[in-house]
Order: sequence, then C-alpha cells, then structure tokens
Amino acid sequence: MGGGVRVPRGVILISGGLDSAVTAGVARSSGYSLVGLTFVYGQRHSIEIERAKEFAQGPEFESHHIIELQPFPKGSSSLTDEGMEIPKNRESDEIDAAGIPSTYVPARNTIFLSQALAWCEALDISDIFLGVNALDYSGYPDCRPEYLKAFEKMARLATRVGVEGTSELRLRAPLLHRTKAEIIQLGAQLGVPLEKTWSCYSPVIDKTKGTALACGECDSCLLRAKGFQEAQVPDPTPYAKKPFREEA
Amino acid sequence: MGGGVRVPRGVILISGGLDSAVTAGVARSSGYSLVGLTFVYGQRHSIEIERAKEFAQGPEFESHHIIELQPFPKGSSSLTDEGMEIPKNRESDEIDAAGIPSTYVPARNTIFLSQALAWCEALDISDIFLGVNALDYSGYPDCRPEYLKAFEKMARLATRVGVEGTSELRLRAPLLHRTKAEIIQLGAQLGVPLEKTWSCYSPVIDKTKGTALACGECDSCLLRAKGFQEAQVPDPTPYAKKPFREEA
Repeated sequence: MGGGVRVPRGVILISGGLDSAVTAGVARSSGYSLVGLTFVYGQRHSIEIERAKEFAQGPEFESHHIIELQPFPKGSSSLTDEGMEIPKNRESDEIDAAGIPSTYVPARNTIFLSQALAWCEALDISDIFLGVNALDYSGYPDCRPEYLKAFEKMARLATRVGVEGTSELRLRAPLLHRTKAEIIQLGAQLGVPLEKTWSCYSPVIDKTKGTALACGECDSCLLRAKGFQEAQVPDPTPYAKKPFREEA
Repeated sequence: MGGGVRVPRGVILISGGLDSAVTAGVARSSGYSLVGLTFVYGQRHSIEIERAKEFAQGPEFESHHIIELQPFPKGSSSLTDEGMEIPKNRESDEIDAAGIPSTYVPARNTIFLSQALAWCEALDISDIFLGVNALDYSGYPDCRPEYLKAFEKMARLATRVGVEGTSELRLRAPLLHRTKAEIIQLGAQLGVPLEKTWSCYSPVIDKTKGTALACGECDSCLLRAKGFQEAQVPDPTPYAKKPFREEA
C-alpha cells in the first residue's frame, strides 16, 4: 500500500491474427508488461509470423520469442499438410461428424500453452493471455471454456506454484465469450491496428503488386469478414475474392 | 468375438532411463504395439538419448521419433543450464522451500505429454504410457498422481476424442505407486535389459576406456543405487564413485 507499484506481467500467445492482437490490446489497457510467444509449427505460410513480429514491437512487449516446433505428423491437419485441401465456403464434407473441420491441428493449444507454462515458471510470471474465443470459432475442441478450465487446473498442479501455493497460475482469455463483431469493436476502441492482423489460411499472391491477398473463401476469412460487417467497422482486409455470397 | 484380434497401440515417452524402459516392458507384456517419443530439450549430455534409440529397437516398437524442442529458458534448471551446478548428495541448499531440487525442468512433463497427445490424435491412439513414479522420486510437481489425473481430464477435453466421445484418452503410469526397488525387480522379471538404461544427471568420462561412467553423487544415481540394493538385484551401473556413504 503506497509503496512501489509492481507492473503486472503476462506471457501471451501471439499469432499475428486478429484475436491475439486484440487480446494484447486488452492486456496493455490493464497495464500488463508482456512476454510474447509465437510458434512456428509447419504452417503453410509465414505471413502471420511476420505480422506477429510487427505486433510484438509494441510498447507493451518486454520481449518476444519465436519458438520452432517440429512439424506435426503428416495428415493431421490441412493447416500444416500441403497434401490436404483447405476447406472453402464451409463445405460440409470437410467437417467431420463432430463438426471439427480439417484445419484443426491436433493438440495445438495444449502444446502452445504448455510452452507458455514453462516460460511462466522460468520468469516467475503467473498470467497467460490467449485469444481464444468460443462463440464465432471454427469448432476446435481446444477453444472451449471447459478445456481452458481443465488446463488451468492441470497447470497449477504441474508446477512449483502448485506445490508452493504462493501464487496461482491464471489463464486469461478476455475474448472467450465475445462474438467476432464484438472483438473487432473492442480492438477498434483500444486502438489496435486491425489492418496489420492476418487471418487467412490460404493466402493468394497478387502478382501485379507482389503482395499477399486473403483468399476470402476459407473459414477464417468468412468469420473475419462477417465480423467486420456486423461490427460496422470498415474491413481493411485485401481479399482476392469477395467473401460473401449474394443474398437473395 | 473370434474375429481378428486388434493389437492395442500406445504412445510412450521413452527417455533412456530405468523407469521408461520398465514401463515399455510392462506395455509389451500386455501386448501393446508402441510409438516411442524421445525429446531433445537441451539436456547437458546425450547418453540417455542414445540409450533411448537402442531401446526403441525392441520388437514392441512400431516406430520411434526423436523430437527436438527449443532449449528451455536459461536459468530454469540445472539439468539444462551449464551455468548451474547439478546438486550432489542431496545437499539441502540446492532444494527450495517446497522441496523441489534445481534439476526440476519447468513444465517438462506437460510439454512432453502435450506432444504425445498430438501423436495420439494424429495416429488414432488412445493410450499414453509414461514412467513417472510418485514414491522414490525427486520431488518434481509433475510426477504427482493428482497432476496426472488433471492432465488426463484436460487431454480428453482438448481433443477430438473429447468431442466425439468415441474413445477415452488414458494416461498409463504403471510404476506410479512402486518403489524404485520394486521397479527394478519388475524390470528383471520382465527381462528388461536394465544394464542399458542410463540414470545419471552428470556423467563422467572414463579416460582410460573412453566410456561414460555414472557420477554416483547426483540424486538420480543415489535413487538408482539404493533401488538396486534394496531389490537385491546386482547393480550393473558403472559408477565413477561408490554411491553410498559408509554405514557405521
């Protein structure tokens, strides 16, 4: 009380996408100093990693680490295996019986959060920020609130913190119960440079300009475009193809 | 009934140490076909990785994968940071207030198990074997039964299995409630080549022969030597220094 103010610190998973950028904005607005982690895990394209590096230049970041993971086993996800097609326009045959699309990467969030947990312990940090969202999401099991709760419980038992009982490890997912439109509105309010974020799974190179365009057809593009429309925020994304079907 | 018998399959964390070798022996005796995972994570020495490769030649292994992880943050463990001393003879100043020694690697089991979870999902396997042991162990938080139970619960929610409900992910830790002596006896009964296993954190090179000797002073050597003695199984380990203090 009245003594020196300790700046709260957090580890954040930063992908270069919309959700993690807005999550960083929320953490910044609460005064957090952030250690950013970005994972390279055999993604088909590196645009989002470049965007993550740009984001991590922000004043809220005390450091940023690119962590390379060995590629996931072949055939496990269309997001990492070039032999598989990225589904377009929510084709039903690309979604399995449980509603999980082929872009799901096995255990991805668990692998990322486990690494974040190690950084928390090593740096004596107890908060992990992540941009998951359980409303306008793609049906991935590791974005569900019950999963996050179970991870947090496990994480407390996994580490020194759980034995010493001195502080509690916390997962902070401030976007969990927001729609994509609400996330975009929040990002705009917080001054997050949304135009720098990248969402497309399957970018197209614009040969005339040599720049990347978002395909406008993958699930991620569809969610993003719908979010901007509903938020009534101008969509700054350069799409190769207009993401909406004509309404009757 | 009477149809083709499906061989059960498991993913196993195999380190080259005693516990994971005996765990593989238990899985083999139950008829499992195993996918072995060995992690390279900046360990100070590679002897245990070589031993893991030898073990994975066994007929119970359908495949073996060496997974390289980026080194853990500096200063997080004496097992991975050459700037830190490996504690000897259970010196109390190397153990923190919660009884956790400096050889503890932050979130190590969580990181390994998360990777195993990805392999399970990609290969449609529901059993993960690991050699943790909650009795004669070094006080690591991520070896406790309550941790394993929490990981299992989280893992079921993290993956397709948790959504589809078709099968249940199981962590199998057959040594969890055995003493080191019981593990050694079990290994001897199952014909596990215990002499090929490696436990020492801090090996010494025998300059006359060019081979590695176990130091006989680190916590892992002390637990191993005591286990062989109590099991009344001859200890095949080449120690640089006899691991026991003279009894009065």
